[in-house]
Amino acid sequence: MEEVLDKETRRETCNSHLGALEDTLYAIGGKWKLKVISTMRDTGTTRFNELLRHIPGISAKVLSNELKELELNGLVMRTVYTETPVVIEYQLTEYSETLHNVLVSMIEWGRQHKARIRAERS
Amino acid sequence: MEEVLDKETRRETCNSHLGALEDTLYAIGGKWKLKVISTMRDTGTTRFNELLRHIPGISAKVLSNELKELELNGLVMRTVYTETPVVIEYQLTEYSETLHNVLVSMIEWGRQHKARIRAERS
Repeated sequence: MEEVLDKETRRETCNSHLGALEDTLYAIGGKWKLKVISTMRDTGTTRFNELLRHIPGISAKVLSNELKELELNGLVMRTVYTETPVVIEYQLTEYSETLHNVLVSMIEWGRQHKARIRAERS
Repeated sequence: MEEVLDKETRRETCNSHLGALEDTLYAIGGKWKLKVISTMRDTGTTRFNELLRHIPGISAKVLSNELKELELNGLVMRTVYTETPVVIEYQLTEYSETLHNVLVSMIEWGRQHKARIRAERS
């Protein structure tokens, strides 16, 4: 009986974790979103074309789409200044700071993973 | 001059972060790999069919592929016992424990993100 309960608890924990991972991956998963956020944090740029230059391999179409989705999830704020010519600025929201631990842990892991692969090869 | 250097430093930091993120996403990015690892951690299962049951939405073909890639990256170990019938076991490696912070931060973020969305809607 205890074992059955234990199995159920573990299953519930597992499902809860899978649900949370799903929500995270839905909002910031894929190839580009974390890179866009990281680049905005590091360079402080607010301009589309600068972002485009900073992120190797991203296309204008994809960047535009990623920024829209980040905006929908409250991570990026888009401001249009109706001057001539119109100026559009993208800024990280305060909410995006909640991603700090995710970014740091992923950057740290990538670094040690690359070091590990290099050590294996030599 | 100082400003130019500062800009260069920021650019280098940015590139270093982007490179590390790339390495992480290459090894554990995508829709399933973190879910597979999380499920193996939580349930302790070593069997393919059990994993298949635990992870909603994954197909046998995709799971098989993900496990192969996780094995190539040293995160999962596959053992074949040549009994009759042949038994195949999948186990997390010690190295997979280095993903602890990534998993925890992503699970925590997903939880608070869902709570935030719920609060916004009500």
